[in-house]
Amino acid sequence: MSSTAPHTLYYSPGAASLVVHWLLIELDEAYELRLVDTKSGEQKSPEYLALNPNGVVPTLVIDNEPQFEAAALVQTLADRRPEAGLAPALDDPRRGAHTQWMFHLANSVQPLFRIWWYPHEVAGEAQAEAARAHVAPRIEAAWERLDAHLAANGPHLLGDRMSAADFYLLMLMRWSRNMPRPATEWPHLATLARTLTARPSFRTLYEREGLTEWP
Amino acid sequence: MSSTAPHTLYYSPGAASLVVHWLLIELDEAYELRLVDTKSGEQKSPEYLALNPNGVVPTLVIDNEPQFEAAALVQTLADRRPEAGLAPALDDPRRGAHTQWMFHLANSVQPLFRIWWYPHEVAGEAQAEAARAHVAPRIEAAWERLDAHLAANGPHLLGDRMSAADFYLLMLMRWSRNMPRPATEWPHLATLARTLTARPSFRTLYEREGLTEWP
Repeated sequence: MSSTAPHTLYYSPGAASLVVHWLLIELDEAYELRLVDTKSGEQKSPEYLALNPNGVVPTLVIDNEPQFEAAALVQTLADRRPEAGLAPALDDPRRGAHTQWMFHLANSVQPLFRIWWYPHEVAGEAQAEAARAHVAPRIEAAWERLDAHLAANGPHLLGDRMSAADFYLLMLMRWSRNMPRPATEWPHLATLARTLTARPSFRTLYEREGLTEWP
Repeated sequence: MSSTAPHTLYYSPGAASLVVHWLLIELDEAYELRLVDTKSGEQKSPEYLALNPNGVVPTLVIDNEPQFEAAALVQTLADRRPEAGLAPALDDPRRGAHTQWMFHLANSVQPLFRIWWYPHEVAGEAQAEAARAHVAPRIEAAWERLDAHLAANGPHLLGDRMSAADFYLLMLMRWSRNMPRPATEWPHLATLARTLTARPSFRTLYEREGLTEWP
């Protein structure tokens, strides 16, 4: 299933493209990087919108077809390389749980960070601080539930088995690093972070995106 | 892959459980319904939280295991019944596109409706109207982009092929029915709604959930 043509990842350091980049390295895929200057609004340029009409990173060109949504790209990359074992096969009893966690993070956790990063979007500039104050405890409640799941069923989201959903969770945890209560304040989440960030692929990712902070 | 034991769907009429219920009917799965009285807060009861710690509907008990997240349940049901053709197989070239649309709806569209339905959550009760005023154009922008995709690549999200992602999109479109600009104001979305709501499974769904309005 793996293509011999290199993928092209449109990314911005530390943005939602990070988990896609991490999977590309983890899976040893051939890829090229294209930096999108989000500070200058390049993601809203006509050229970029032709690739991804949502005007956000990431976009990954796979087999000459641009695809978007970070969680979808993570799932697709994992599914294309079944031998790597990062997504359970369709007939694996753990497939349903993996699908659940991927969509839970995409639907119930990542959107809260959109509010944290762009608080003016939800009720106007004057309410930006109020929006942040309201979303922080909701993100903390998400960590609380995820930590309880790991306490009972960990150390990974699928128990003993590391999966693509763990990588996605780690990216979201990283986004909380400067919040009042970062995800690593929860002990089982902190353990998962230590395990995953110790992987050589994480060090390579940080080098290639020029990142230093966290964990 | 299909289980002979009936599934149990915890639902509330018209809520996010609707698309899961619709797929159960469409796939002719054996299931039992459990009404969750969300008006009285039953979804926050200890009994329900033991099934689904997120305190929302739906929960679907599959093979005696409670699973959550509507989009995940749609994907899982479709994947368990490959002969129904509602989700492309992993080796189908359209699998990546289907995964993209499922996660796009889950990450970028459904969360906007959470703001529309619970506007007090984002910046407090005093800002509820401001939150609604800010989210409506963002939902409309989502319809605009989806309609443009259908205009160029329709009539379904995957072109000629109907898929589970279309059912999920229809539920979200239904949620916009009393908004200033309902999704059916966009012509290609309206066509898709006519096609999908004409299915016998939709009539059965409405009967079983006691729904009448829309489209």
